[in-house]
Amino acid sequence: GVLERLNAGEVVIGDGGFVFALEKRGYVKAGPWTPEATVQYPDAVRQLHREFLRAGSNVMQTFTFYASDDKLENRGNNLKVTGAQINEAACDLAREVANEGDALVAGGVSQTPSYLSCKSEADVKAIFRKQLDVFIKKNVDFLIAEYFEHVEEAVWAVEVLKETGKPVAASLCIGPKGDMHGVSPGECAVRLVKAGAQIVGVNCHFDPMTCVETVKLMKEGVEKAGLKAHYMVQPLAFHTPDCNCQGFIDLPEFPFGLEPRILTRWDMHKYAREAYNAGIRFIGGCCGFEAYHIRAIAEELAPERGFLPSASEKHGSWGAGLEMHTKPWVRARARRDYWENLKPASGRPQCPSMSVPDSWGVTKGHADLMQQKEATSKEELEQLFDKSKTH
Amino acid sequence: GVLERLNAGEVVIGDGGFVFALEKRGYVKAGPWTPEATVQYPDAVRQLHREFLRAGSNVMQTFTFYASDDKLENRGNNLKVTGAQINEAACDLAREVANEGDALVAGGVSQTPSYLSCKSEADVKAIFRKQLDVFIKKNVDFLIAEYFEHVEEAVWAVEVLKETGKPVAASLCIGPKGDMHGVSPGECAVRLVKAGAQIVGVNCHFDPMTCVETVKLMKEGVEKAGLKAHYMVQPLAFHTPDCNCQGFIDLPEFPFGLEPRILTRWDMHKYAREAYNAGIRFIGGCCGFEAYHIRAIAEELAPERGFLPSASEKHGSWGAGLEMHTKPWVRARARRDYWENLKPASGRPQCPSMSVPDSWGVTKGHADLMQQKEATSKEELEQLFDKSKTH
Amino acid sequence: GVLERLNAGEVVIGDGGFVFALEKRGYVKAGPWTPEATVQYPDAVRQLHREFLRAGSNVMQTFTFYASDDKLENRGNNLKVTGAQINEAACDLAREVANEGDALVAGGVSQTPSYLSCKSEADVKAIFRKQLDVFIKKNVDFLIAEYFEHVEEAVWAVEVLKETGKPVAASLCIGPKGDMHGVSPGECAVRLVKAGAQIVGVNCHFDPMTCVETVKLMKEGVEKAGLKAHYMVQPLAFHTPDCNCQGFIDLPEFPFGLEPRILTRWDMHKYAREAYNAGIRFIGGCCGFEAYHIRAIAEELAPERGFLPSASEKHGSWGAGLEMHTKPWVRARARRDYWENLKPASGRPQCPSMSVPDSWGVTKGHADLMQQKEATSKEELEQLFDKSKTH
Amino acid sequence: GVLERLNAGEVVIGDGGFVFALEKRGYVKAGPWTPEATVQYPDAVRQLHREFLRAGSNVMQTFTFYASDDKLENRGNNLKVTGAQINEAACDLAREVANEGDALVAGGVSQTPSYLSCKSEADVKAIFRKQLDVFIKKNVDFLIAEYFEHVEEAVWAVEVLKETGKPVAASLCIGPKGDMHGVSPGECAVRLVKAGAQIVGVNCHFDPMTCVETVKLMKEGVEKAGLKAHYMVQPLAFHTPDCNCQGFIDLPEFPFGLEPRILTRWDMHKYAREAYNAGIRFIGGCCGFEAYHIRAIAEELAPERGFLPSASEKHGSWGAGLEMHTKPWVRARARRDYWENLKPASGRPQCPSMSVPDSWGVTKGHADLMQQKEATSKEELEQLFDKSKTH
Repeated sequence: GVLERLNAGEVVIGDGGFVFALEKRGYVKAGPWTPEATVQYPDAVRQLHREFLRAGSNVMQTFTFYASDDKLENRGNNLKVTGAQINEAACDLAREVANEGDALVAGGVSQTPSYLSCKSEADVKAIFRKQLDVFIKKNVDFLIAEYFEHVEEAVWAVEVLKETGKPVAASLCIGPKGDMHGVSPGECAVRLVKAGAQIVGVNCHFDPMTCVETVKLMKEGVEKAGLKAHYMVQPLAFHTPDCNCQGFIDLPEFPFGLEPRILTRWDMHKYAREAYNAGIRFIGGCCGFEAYHIRAIAEELAPERGFLPSASEKHGSWGAGLEMHTKPWVRARARRDYWENLKPASGRPQCPSMSVPDSWGVTKGHADLMQQKEATSKEELEQLFDKSKTH
Repeated sequence: GVLERLNAGEVVIGDGGFVFALEKRGYVKAGPWTPEATVQYPDAVRQLHREFLRAGSNVMQTFTFYASDDKLENRGNNLKVTGAQINEAACDLAREVANEGDALVAGGVSQTPSYLSCKSEADVKAIFRKQLDVFIKKNVDFLIAEYFEHVEEAVWAVEVLKETGKPVAASLCIGPKGDMHGVSPGECAVRLVKAGAQIVGVNCHFDPMTCVETVKLMKEGVEKAGLKAHYMVQPLAFHTPDCNCQGFIDLPEFPFGLEPRILTRWDMHKYAREAYNAGIRFIGGCCGFEAYHIRAIAEELAPERGFLPSASEKHGSWGAGLEMHTKPWVRARARRDYWENLKPASGRPQCPSMSVPDSWGVTKGHADLMQQKEATSKEELEQLFDKSKTH
Repeated sequence: GVLERLNAGEVVIGDGGFVFALEKRGYVKAGPWTPEATVQYPDAVRQLHREFLRAGSNVMQTFTFYASDDKLENRGNNLKVTGAQINEAACDLAREVANEGDALVAGGVSQTPSYLSCKSEADVKAIFRKQLDVFIKKNVDFLIAEYFEHVEEAVWAVEVLKETGKPVAASLCIGPKGDMHGVSPGECAVRLVKAGAQIVGVNCHFDPMTCVETVKLMKEGVEKAGLKAHYMVQPLAFHTPDCNCQGFIDLPEFPFGLEPRILTRWDMHKYAREAYNAGIRFIGGCCGFEAYHIRAIAEELAPERGFLPSASEKHGSWGAGLEMHTKPWVRARARRDYWENLKPASGRPQCPSMSVPDSWGVTKGHADLMQQKEATSKEELEQLFDKSKTH
Repeated sequence: GVLERLNAGEVVIGDGGFVFALEKRGYVKAGPWTPEATVQYPDAVRQLHREFLRAGSNVMQTFTFYASDDKLENRGNNLKVTGAQINEAACDLAREVANEGDALVAGGVSQTPSYLSCKSEADVKAIFRKQLDVFIKKNVDFLIAEYFEHVEEAVWAVEVLKETGKPVAASLCIGPKGDMHGVSPGECAVRLVKAGAQIVGVNCHFDPMTCVETVKLMKEGVEKAGLKAHYMVQPLAFHTPDCNCQGFIDLPEFPFGLEPRILTRWDMHKYAREAYNAGIRFIGGCCGFEAYHIRAIAEELAPERGFLPSASEKHGSWGAGLEMHTKPWVRARARRDYWENLKPASGRPQCPSMSVPDSWGVTKGHADLMQQKEATSKEELEQLFDKSKTH
């Protein structure tokens, strides 16, 4: 199990990002980002699982992001399949590939429209339980509550997941400034651990270094409170030094112009080392992470772990594959310090290196509106937003 | 057939880049770049074919790049499979997927180590014939001689391919300055057409706008010579304004630091329009092109062609998928002019926007050495290069 | 007097940077940065005073930066003039030009090598008194202790300057992280006010927005302590988003490659407005500020002050001078929003937009060494530094 | 005289840019760019001459740019002084400072509104003669016709200047693509030499490397035509890799946002060497050049010339002035290779590195309109332009 591995001091390597990778491959629609592909295009989903497994992932997360019933309905899921079918297919695919190697299956829930439209704790928890029923039926190895902007909702999710007796990880999509109500990372982590999460951390929304920094703050908070936990981090594979506290959603490039920000494999080496040094042992990726990014994590940590992933069969470490190139100036790149020091150009001289996040007082406004709780429906909430935009 | 389609004025959409995509997925090794995956990991190759088909490709190129026997040997192919087996498997995979839709199968040969080490015309042609035997046996629909830096070798390839009676396309990996011996694009095209190629153009090595510019020069040359041809372009999906005449190989970022240069889907719209306006009708991609890049070509040219590709099922045109996003400032991005005018940031403020290509008198030196022809072996040639590096 | 003006709520506009401007004109040597030009090239110094006066400066600072005897000696001043002569000439030049307009003369002292080499409070104060003797003799209007990295030395300076009975301003060259011993801006300001400074603020080392931010922190500290003061800010005219806490000295471009960072006049408008909104009323500039930068401050604040500076005779506000340009596309630039929104390009595609400050644990190390106080000489201190560099 | 020096193989160093430097100092108005300051603020003009002399200039150009009567009238010169007075004062100031050192005085004429509004050759020549009368009366050492966009008008100017018997230099503000009617640099140079110019070259509008490239093309043209000439270059001190053929006027940053493009002194070293290697011996600067830029030219060419300029008294070569800096990491910058290899950052991460020039078919349109010659007045011409803008 995941806790056994972490308790033994092992590094557990997570997988990469499904929605972004499958969007580029043509199987997920940007906007809704829903995972009906598990039913529609199982071959495509299975292939992506396999790539991550081969790259070194020890965890196959079920492709159940945004697969709660309220999200699927909201997003106009006009398939003839139910949410349960989507979740079940996701579990089957993850298990099939996990069994091809040394991987665990993790069932995942994420934040819900119900919470954002201010439904009651009971209603929100009921939503989580629907997905959870499938995870129990399919007997996943552990559970992850991930991609939560509000620690309150994440705590509710953890409370539900704990009912199963399975190990529970909890991961927020926040940065160093904390959640959307301004709760600090340290305090967020304490609340999640108290709710029963054995592993806490962050995923998505920010680049690797920012996420590691945030998890460090979580760890400080947990230790200061005299508690214990394991830590996880699954960041974006995009450089986001210019984000505000809402993360990459507010960057003008989201989601269709993020290419120049994609991390190289060498950036991933630095990330993996930094995360390891920070005491984080569950290290993976989220949106933008492809198999070669995960492989880079596994290669960086190979000395500690004692083995390379399967996919390193097709990869010379630190550019070694170039050693036999016919062009000598390309052969000269087959060395670690070359790639470590390279400052890659964008090839876009008319583009800036940093953007200004969308700025209608977004985050503050968002948090304020969320806290007001007077909005009784999504429509009402959006009207408030639209109004705030004009000021 | 491809000629029937082109003669009828149709747009033929090519596929994307196999070696770069499969390298990231863990099935091809950078450096050798050889396609033994057709035998080793057929599921992965088939899946990539399917993504391109779904994205709108009308041509499934056999994944036989660098699959000539001399290349496979040179590169330490210690598999228990022969070159013929690799080529045969490639044909089968391409045909299987082509039959799932409205696509043709094109068998491809590319430049050989034999030519670079100054083997005779007969020797080089013999190499091409070996791959050709497979293409005949597997009855591909047409043939492409692609990725040639020297028009002389490309002419030899065309002469061999013509023996089959199948339609022949010829594509050089050159820019506006011409081939590695300084033969201009116009003159290159004339020689290829005279050798019997019905379709001529360029692929790889340069970004889309540079490639279109080069094909324009080819077209001018062909028309000035009173000849006729169809035109094809399959560029990189990387911005390369800073290349010298050897293309992206000489950029310091090649091949492991090119991420910031990856084109967005919106860049692809501009490329497709520019290529179409230039009179090019076989429009595809090479290294860096993924399915969503091909889909963007198909979507840009949908008005002319009258239909969208299958993968547009999962893509709102010009960001329309964002129309229902819960955050209004993200919804505001669901419009054409937003994405057309976006100047995407790199998120890398310590990196430049343009690089200096490796510069040991590379290209000139390369061409000079090639022309000397005194080098009687690869080793000798490399020694010359290594010497030139120290000056 | 300066206090009367500030007490009346007036904006007092400072002057710009002498050492950088005169270095470019050929009259000051970068490295030593000493002001012997007051004796050697009085015409050049006078002309620069006049430019600032004409641009709107209300304060002529004596060009006595680094004109303490210990600094002049250290720096190999092999002129046949004494420190007193340099300081006297500086006073005469400032007074001459001040009398040509509505300006005050401020005598200035700055940090000393004596402090850095750990001389006693008495020794350091004796150094200040030498310059002060001249300022009294020449009857300057008020005194400024500026460019101090350590609040302790600044407090000593203020204590000495206070002996004269003249108004005293105190300005540190620190950023939001505080002085080189880690004393916060708020605490620094409190100590300076308690020592008797009527005006406190920052100058040099950081760009305008960072300096305004720092003075805001000072103001908060002073107000929280129940004290009262006026506030001044005289920043760099260079963008320095990438500085560490030592400021622009540690940027690799210092001092001979800072050109791409020079602020435009429009950047200065934003700065002046931001400073004014922060409640700062003594607003000027330091290194990099030329006359047109000061004029931009005066033009931005003209609505509040009711008048334009003399030099606006030769300046159309917000580009209005272009209204009669023969080229219509240049005429189209004669409007405020054009210049407010312009993102000026560097014309340097192979350069980054941010640098990495020199990083031999510089600042931390520096502060640590300073605090150790065991170094009994400059040589010893430098040896410590040199050692730290190798780690 | 200038020809004696050039014939003897000496390097003649020109001066820098007056209108831009004096605009920043508050004495010239951007837009009109007229030199009435020679009468209004002679001290300021004299000081700038002195700075250039001290920096190494061998030529004091009279500050008579745009001082033709038609320009002064057009631009609303409502001073109580005549054009002749402005030109006379300019001559006196240049002569006064030239006599303080080893410099020549050059009287300069530049392109006229009369030509642009299609006045006759006789009318345009009459305009030049008015300024020339002053230059004869004041006995300047030689004459320069500079800043011409159309070689036709420059030829007229040379023909007039030749009447005096004084040496004549002719300098166009064009780039490698030639003048505004598309006449190539080589052909332009041939026409100017045939008209009697002994020195030909380019000034303004483009950056140093582009200008050197253009003069190389001129030299090739002259030599191919079997003619002989000396060559001059006086470029911008702004990087302009992104200009179209109209030069920096069309860059969106012109003229108030050019700061990030300012060349460093080290860029000037490269320029001076490149110009020297190209066989150019009259090497100076135009807009943006300040004294320290000229000094850098003189320092780079000191080995060839055998002496340093006066201003090097205050300048350690290649950063040597930093050798005694108290901070060791700053001392480490006191070496040539540090500054030669530095890629200076802009400190502006939200700005691009290259701009798109204003693009209403500007240049082509401009040239077309100019060639039509139907416009009989400035008003008519501008109407045409305004119309072209809307297309």
